[in-house]
Amino acid sequence: MAEFELIHKYFSPLAGKGAGGLLDDAAILDIPQGQQLIVTSDTSNRGDHFVDALPPKEAAQKCLRSNLSDLAAMGADPFCYQLNLALPKDLEEDWLAEFAKGLAADQKEFGIFLSGGDTTAMGAGGLSVSITALGLVPPGQAVKRGGARIGDLAVVTGPLGDACLDRFRIPYPRTAIAPLIRRYAKAAVDISDGLPADLGHICEVSGLAARVELEKIPFSDKVREAIQSGAKTPQDILIWGEDYELALAVAPEDFESFKVAAAGQGVALAAIGIFEAGAPKVTVMDKAGKPLVFERTGWQHF
Amino acid sequence: MAEFELIHKYFSPLAGKGAGGLLDDAAILDIPQGQQLIVTSDTSNRGDHFVDALPPKEAAQKCLRSNLSDLAAMGADPFCYQLNLALPKDLEEDWLAEFAKGLAADQKEFGIFLSGGDTTAMGAGGLSVSITALGLVPPGQAVKRGGARIGDLAVVTGPLGDACLDRFRIPYPRTAIAPLIRRYAKAAVDISDGLPADLGHICEVSGLAARVELEKIPFSDKVREAIQSGAKTPQDILIWGEDYELALAVAPEDFESFKVAAAGQGVALAAIGIFEAGAPKVTVMDKAGKPLVFERTGWQHF
Repeated sequence: MAEFELIHKYFSPLAGKGAGGLLDDAAILDIPQGQQLIVTSDTSNRGDHFVDALPPKEAAQKCLRSNLSDLAAMGADPFCYQLNLALPKDLEEDWLAEFAKGLAADQKEFGIFLSGGDTTAMGAGGLSVSITALGLVPPGQAVKRGGARIGDLAVVTGPLGDACLDRFRIPYPRTAIAPLIRRYAKAAVDISDGLPADLGHICEVSGLAARVELEKIPFSDKVREAIQSGAKTPQDILIWGEDYELALAVAPEDFESFKVAAAGQGVALAAIGIFEAGAPKVTVMDKAGKPLVFERTGWQHF
Repeated sequence: MAEFELIHKYFSPLAGKGAGGLLDDAAILDIPQGQQLIVTSDTSNRGDHFVDALPPKEAAQKCLRSNLSDLAAMGADPFCYQLNLALPKDLEEDWLAEFAKGLAADQKEFGIFLSGGDTTAMGAGGLSVSITALGLVPPGQAVKRGGARIGDLAVVTGPLGDACLDRFRIPYPRTAIAPLIRRYAKAAVDISDGLPADLGHICEVSGLAARVELEKIPFSDKVREAIQSGAKTPQDILIWGEDYELALAVAPEDFESFKVAAAGQGVALAAIGIFEAGAPKVTVMDKAGKPLVFERTGWQHF
């Protein structure tokens, strides 16, 4: 099937107005006046733990959602996305049809449209899905990694570790509270590589240490059981990543208001620790006040 | 080498201010007031004829330039780009160092900066370079494929076919005349898949036929000799693509002014034919007034 037929059949229905039905060399987008543009990219390849394991519909959703999670971490509202597919020549058309269905469902769920992209062929067995997502924030309100200050609370947006037990789990990006993140968070990062690694990014850029209490980290019952039974160590759970929850720095005086407002959007915030002076490092203390030892802090892409 | 080290070493130096040194989940970009955003993507994979054949520096330039060419076809000025790399785990670091050098040189040449991206690993042998480029146009001035009208001249921005003789050739995108394209062109497309296919896109979206005279198509001496010697047919030359020149629709009364202004920017325009009523189709007439027969119109990606 030729590229243009593929595009017309599966992707034109996903294209927003500005994308002109994907008929031009590029999309023409109106950026609402007085908004900054937030741009992020996320690539997933065959060989990554989910692209092979998941049905194509869910694989599409995971690819798109990891980008939406990055937008949420900046406090940005989703706007549109570019989809770049490098597909093996022996790919079944069914795979593409299901993949497009997953995108269509998530476009509706998260209020985003396809602005364009490129569909190319690569050798049998290869497959690369690269998405660049655009979001919007009012000027100066984007939330960065470097804004944490001594005494800020380390906060997470939901239970961690479920992806470690269930590789078929589809994350749910926290776009619903992007406006609250802009209002209340001083720094933010999305947890894709594991809490110690990702919270560590806030520490590095803010020039602070973070001390987290294991007891305060929210875990689902399933994760709690896996730890209690010894099937998983807390370290296994924490470095797995793929949670696509957010880690935030929040001033103590703002936490209660933020928590109440987030709960109103269905998001349960948990304060799990504190930022303090010190070399950029995340320490996770157990119940006895002893630091957990991590052999590595998170997912290494290479 | 870990992803973060790679990013810091090779890509942070390429990042513009809005990309914050690639330290955040996303870039924060100020879109100049009263500009529309133009977004395009282009993916190249190992197995494509150039990614393997070219040294990494030139491969990087070809990947970036194919995007810049799409921006020029819209009449857009380059703004910034996202770089998404899926690299084999056995890639030599030298490859990446040279690849980054190519990008650095072109950022300077074309006035564009790296806003972010993603670097991921894939199986040995695979390699995918996906770039999403952002450009800017004053509102309503973007040039689309659907604007050609009966009697408009079909115009190209430079000699075609050299890529068919020299696969090591690096194209030179026509960004310098983007403001002139906005002013004078009624429709535009970049010639990446061959003249009949790409000019055909203008025909399809504009609902017109195009009649081109082979005699008027600008060819370099080398291409002309290859045709005269019989080493290549005109069809071989025209369907090869990879020219990254532009095909434009221009009102006859505007052509001379456009030509003079473009020459001032070092770009030689040639009027090669005319748009006329009829089913969307490109006909190339030889000297005797007989239409050339094409077995296919251009590069098929699948």
